[in-house]
Amino acid sequence: MALKTRTIDGKLVEDVRDYIEQGNENALKRLLDESRAADLADLIEHLKPNERIFIFKLLEPEGAGDVLVEIEPPVQEGIIKELDNRTITEIVQELDSDDAADVVGDLPAKRAKEVIEAVDDEVTEELEKLLPYPEDTAGGIMGLEFVAVKADVTLRDAIETIRAKKEEVENLYHIWVVDDFGKLVGLVSMKDFLLEPPHLKVHEIMNPEVISINALADQEEVVHLARKYDLVNIPVVDEHHRLIGRITHDDVIDVIEEEVDEDISLMAGVISEEVAEESTIKISKARLPWLLMAIFGELVAAFVITNFEASLKQIIALTFFFPVIMAMGGNSGTQAATIVVRGLATGDVSLVHAGRRLWREMRVALLNGLICGLVLGVIVGFWLSDPGLGLIVGMALILIIMNSGLIGASVPLVLKRFNIDPALGTGPFVSTSNDIFSLFIYLGLITVFLHSRF
Amino acid sequence: MALKTRTIDGKLVEDVRDYIEQGNENALKRLLDESRAADLADLIEHLKPNERIFIFKLLEPEGAGDVLVEIEPPVQEGIIKELDNRTITEIVQELDSDDAADVVGDLPAKRAKEVIEAVDDEVTEELEKLLPYPEDTAGGIMGLEFVAVKADVTLRDAIETIRAKKEEVENLYHIWVVDDFGKLVGLVSMKDFLLEPPHLKVHEIMNPEVISINALADQEEVVHLARKYDLVNIPVVDEHHRLIGRITHDDVIDVIEEEVDEDISLMAGVISEEVAEESTIKISKARLPWLLMAIFGELVAAFVITNFEASLKQIIALTFFFPVIMAMGGNSGTQAATIVVRGLATGDVSLVHAGRRLWREMRVALLNGLICGLVLGVIVGFWLSDPGLGLIVGMALILIIMNSGLIGASVPLVLKRFNIDPALGTGPFVSTSNDIFSLFIYLGLITVFLHSRF
Repeated sequence: MALKTRTIDGKLVEDVRDYIEQGNENALKRLLDESRAADLADLIEHLKPNERIFIFKLLEPEGAGDVLVEIEPPVQEGIIKELDNRTITEIVQELDSDDAADVVGDLPAKRAKEVIEAVDDEVTEELEKLLPYPEDTAGGIMGLEFVAVKADVTLRDAIETIRAKKEEVENLYHIWVVDDFGKLVGLVSMKDFLLEPPHLKVHEIMNPEVISINALADQEEVVHLARKYDLVNIPVVDEHHRLIGRITHDDVIDVIEEEVDEDISLMAGVISEEVAEESTIKISKARLPWLLMAIFGELVAAFVITNFEASLKQIIALTFFFPVIMAMGGNSGTQAATIVVRGLATGDVSLVHAGRRLWREMRVALLNGLICGLVLGVIVGFWLSDPGLGLIVGMALILIIMNSGLIGASVPLVLKRFNIDPALGTGPFVSTSNDIFSLFIYLGLITVFLHSRF
Repeated sequence: MALKTRTIDGKLVEDVRDYIEQGNENALKRLLDESRAADLADLIEHLKPNERIFIFKLLEPEGAGDVLVEIEPPVQEGIIKELDNRTITEIVQELDSDDAADVVGDLPAKRAKEVIEAVDDEVTEELEKLLPYPEDTAGGIMGLEFVAVKADVTLRDAIETIRAKKEEVENLYHIWVVDDFGKLVGLVSMKDFLLEPPHLKVHEIMNPEVISINALADQEEVVHLARKYDLVNIPVVDEHHRLIGRITHDDVIDVIEEEVDEDISLMAGVISEEVAEESTIKISKARLPWLLMAIFGELVAAFVITNFEASLKQIIALTFFFPVIMAMGGNSGTQAATIVVRGLATGDVSLVHAGRRLWREMRVALLNGLICGLVLGVIVGFWLSDPGLGLIVGMALILIIMNSGLIGASVPLVLKRFNIDPALGTGPFVSTSNDIFSLFIYLGLITVFLHSRF
């Protein structure tokens, strides 16, 4: 069967729409048969809910699952809602164990139970192995499709083990080696299997230095290992170091995307599921808390301003510079915070040299503060034709940039220290507090200055 | 050789520092011998420049390269500066072709030329094949370590080809099949090689549906393909579809990180290299443009305010709400922009249904605007004990949130349309313009209101 890869363009989407309207199932079936699952998932995401179901129901059970798991969560949910348990059971039956567990895990408890009972015992068993693990742990990502052989068997025998599993394990890059207790003791690459004489014992050619991960480890740890040691798949072990699953390179990429989405979401005050979310209510719900938090936070800023009403009445022009003051505090804070958060995420920044990082940020803040302070100070001095005032505004800006730099760089490090997601240290939360500090510094300094003057 | 994986903690770093001070090379050599390249790279990043060189010079040429390529660019640069051409030549000699090209590509032209001449002809040839490709293309990422066989040879013969390349090609997961003109026509998994009878011809078991990428394609396209079709490695072809290179799963992950860094950097007005950058000047240089842009942008906002000085003099309290007005415009704009940018990056948002996306964002903005407008309106009404003014401020906030939502969602789509990085549509740039619009809407509405009243 010749599978074309296709990019979903407006025309294709239109054609499909027309076929659906005309009920031209043959044309659609032809399209589905010759397309890859990932492309069909892409296509389906571009359609309207009712069209999605129509297309999806045309898929063969074997193929349907592969398409389903490629579809973005919110859209996937919508489709699953429309499918009867029989169809879902057929799909779960065909899926790899990890995908099957994900699909069943997302079902309402009652449906999940029914499906688990309906599938073959073998699949039931797999689901019962995988479902207990929290979604964001190695166990929650792992699948059960791997090949393990004993260290003391010959390559010839091992190859028969591989042959027996060839259907089940699609992408096979390494064979893992276990001892009599099922403990992971090594790995053999397919290359060595192919090239070494078959009469050798597995332990004679295996590499004993196999990196594995505990099933309960956080998924961030999975990414960290895979990225650091360029692992194509990672064996998952239980607390007794017994081999119980495998995580593949594409799962790792999915987790990376997930973690990045999470960080970016916190930076902006959104939730990543939104990207494919279609319900206005749900999106609004996701963003509203951040907006309301900002309202009340900035009302504190408003309150700060009220305390300087006298100065403002005296020189109304001082209010002209609120935007620049707040923007500078916000931006320099975000800059510092973003670098630290990103560094912590990729592992390039660690708590080991947190002090050096802070010190570096302080030096940068001082330098940028001096330059920006000079620029703004001169402009304000001329604008209000009051050099003294310009000097004060410039000095205020230096302090503001240093202050928000310090906050921006230290908050994520502190959060990390207490195992809270450092990304919380960016975004609306911190920029709001920076606004408050910045206005206080700005208005405070100026008020002192005005008093000293008169 | 038993390689331990180790996490770099403060203690280890301290120990190494002490060894270096004591000049205890034996202890260090032992540590280096039993550690993985990635861990050593990590360790070296934690040391001071002079310590780094000291450690690095203790490494064997074979190992040194693997460590070097794992070190973050800015630190790597610092080390390479300190190495003589002979050492660099030895290192380049040992590296995989893609890594070798990266190292040589980063050298100053003169040194690069000297190294290219110094290495073996074979390596020289490889470098001359790879160096012409721009860094951010498939050709710029690809390596030359792959195995290709003719479609009409037997598996037995093909296996000999693999044997001949077993040292060169470390991680071998697929064998690619080419025709007499070197055109890519299929792939065979190692599993099939292992399990199918050796007398079969390659074309009898090969999968003709092999996904490949053109050497000149953008690296984003590489990520897109690998992610979408879960590819463990991607064959790279020239304009005649001749197989010329391969991209591995770990290269793909590196590119993903790179692209994410790029987007996040634009969101915050930083450059990602900063994470490991140590020179205050360089970091400052990276961030200053954004800060200065913000200064001048917000001075436009200041100018907007001056136009409403009369209203402000009339009710100074109006200035209290500048922070909340600007924050709301900024945050809701960033929320919309971030979702669109992230969606475009992962491919979950496409220009195909840009209209639907905008419409969705508008509905969300209206809903959130109504809620936030109501909240702020009531608060302001009571605060200034002026319900009318509260009503206007509330209405202003609705318009502001809708306006910045529209800008936030549409700017990235427009940028994408013109093949500019959509991430430019987030960050300082857009939040500044939102500040200007927001203040204008707020002050404008209120001024109209005040006039109508008196």
